[in-house]
Amino acid sequence: MRMNTQYLINGRHDVALTPLDRGLAYGDGVFRTFPVRLGKVHCWERHYRQLSEDCKALGIVCPQASLLQHDVALICGETELAAVKIIVTRGEGARGYAVPALSQPTRIVIKSAMPDYPEPHFTEGVRVHLCQLRLAEQPRLAGIKHLNRLENVLARMEWVDPKIADGVLLDAEGRVIECTMSNLFVRHGNTLTTPDLSRCGVAGVTRQRVLEMAPLLGLDAHVSNFDLDHLLAADEVIACNSLFGAWQVRHMGDRTWEVGTLAARLRNLLEQDE
Amino acid sequence: MRMNTQYLINGRHDVALTPLDRGLAYGDGVFRTFPVRLGKVHCWERHYRQLSEDCKALGIVCPQASLLQHDVALICGETELAAVKIIVTRGEGARGYAVPALSQPTRIVIKSAMPDYPEPHFTEGVRVHLCQLRLAEQPRLAGIKHLNRLENVLARMEWVDPKIADGVLLDAEGRVIECTMSNLFVRHGNTLTTPDLSRCGVAGVTRQRVLEMAPLLGLDAHVSNFDLDHLLAADEVIACNSLFGAWQVRHMGDRTWEVGTLAARLRNLLEQDE
Repeated sequence: MRMNTQYLINGRHDVALTPLDRGLAYGDGVFRTFPVRLGKVHCWERHYRQLSEDCKALGIVCPQASLLQHDVALICGETELAAVKIIVTRGEGARGYAVPALSQPTRIVIKSAMPDYPEPHFTEGVRVHLCQLRLAEQPRLAGIKHLNRLENVLARMEWVDPKIADGVLLDAEGRVIECTMSNLFVRHGNTLTTPDLSRCGVAGVTRQRVLEMAPLLGLDAHVSNFDLDHLLAADEVIACNSLFGAWQVRHMGDRTWEVGTLAARLRNLLEQDE
Repeated sequence: MRMNTQYLINGRHDVALTPLDRGLAYGDGVFRTFPVRLGKVHCWERHYRQLSEDCKALGIVCPQASLLQHDVALICGETELAAVKIIVTRGEGARGYAVPALSQPTRIVIKSAMPDYPEPHFTEGVRVHLCQLRLAEQPRLAGIKHLNRLENVLARMEWVDPKIADGVLLDAEGRVIECTMSNLFVRHGNTLTTPDLSRCGVAGVTRQRVLEMAPLLGLDAHVSNFDLDHLLAADEVIACNSLFGAWQVRHMGDRTWEVGTLAARLRNLLEQDE
């Protein structure tokens, strides 16, 4: 039986979100998603650090880690495994874009069932769609996991085939940036590269972990710009996020890659809590 | 005494918004703001048409006009004058960007007091700030009054001086686009020009009305790209939106414009309900 989605707003079951919340009005907030096992967040310190940095970039006061951890423990209880999303908004405001002098951030913790990923996604790799939508360049918001996600929504509307696991997003210049719900890595020989996210894209915690663990797998890791041809010429392509870990991209359009070992090796390392 | 902000969600006072609403999660929705006098929306048909078109652009089913009009009448009652905002989101959804097969849009109607604009904004014109933030180009979202408004929020954070009425926004190429909460027109002789909004910006109802009424004032109206120098060289600069109508821009940085008559003449025509 699937778990019902449950949520806490500012730590309470009985508090409602109002349409005056700037999270709704303007997408004025940030979020993080991660697995929780028996009340314990996988890689909590990394997720909280990123949440804090994203809040800081928007001038939002990030709730204390202990408050959020308390909320997660309260809502997850003895649940064996859940997908939890934390949303922090700037809070309620009056009309207009001006930030209230005394805004009280809204913290929201949502517990859902872990997505029911097909087992072959892990054992055989996935098919991805090359999205038509091109990401806009906004250096002031690049990298931040903020609530302005219409580009991801429109990109995700480009396919309905359930055999497609995610969609690759390019920017207007044709640079590869990410997938709609994951970050990308390409391996050419011993070189592992992930796109530069200084103009657009979301910098996930798992992307950072993969960059750090690459040397353990004998790989030189780099962050740089590259185009679609560079992706197509890769020996292996990996999509990663905090919920599924890492999948090998096996098919995109006519391009097919042989089964490799990198995704499984990454998942093995990503399992560690750090 | 200031009016309390009130709202209806799906036509009801007793329905709460939940954090599963995609309007919060992704900014997956659109909005419109307008004045309401004694329950009657100024230029309702135009606002509803734009709301419907924006919904259509995102694949959201727009609520029927009669439902929204009923909500507005219910919440405004005998109120002499109010600022009303309609928000339509794609509704609640499960985890992930994929659009639910059977999503039920959420309609929200919020009544606030009309902003307390200083009288000199109308009689003497306004000062504007030239924003540092540059708008990103996303043709798929350009023109739409959607809920992804972090750029406006960040731009509005650039000034605190209450004497500054709005901020002028350029795109990354230096083209003039709009202000944070209004559209812009520049007059050079008998030519009135408003920026092309096919790459970024929000196309307001008042912008369209000004374009249509320009001939009544002996002006040739155009939509085209122009840069900051073209704005600085204008005989008159006008900011417009549905709440304040039209203001003359009198000061931006060191540039000062003489008091003109265009803003007042536009306001006079904009008063008409059509």
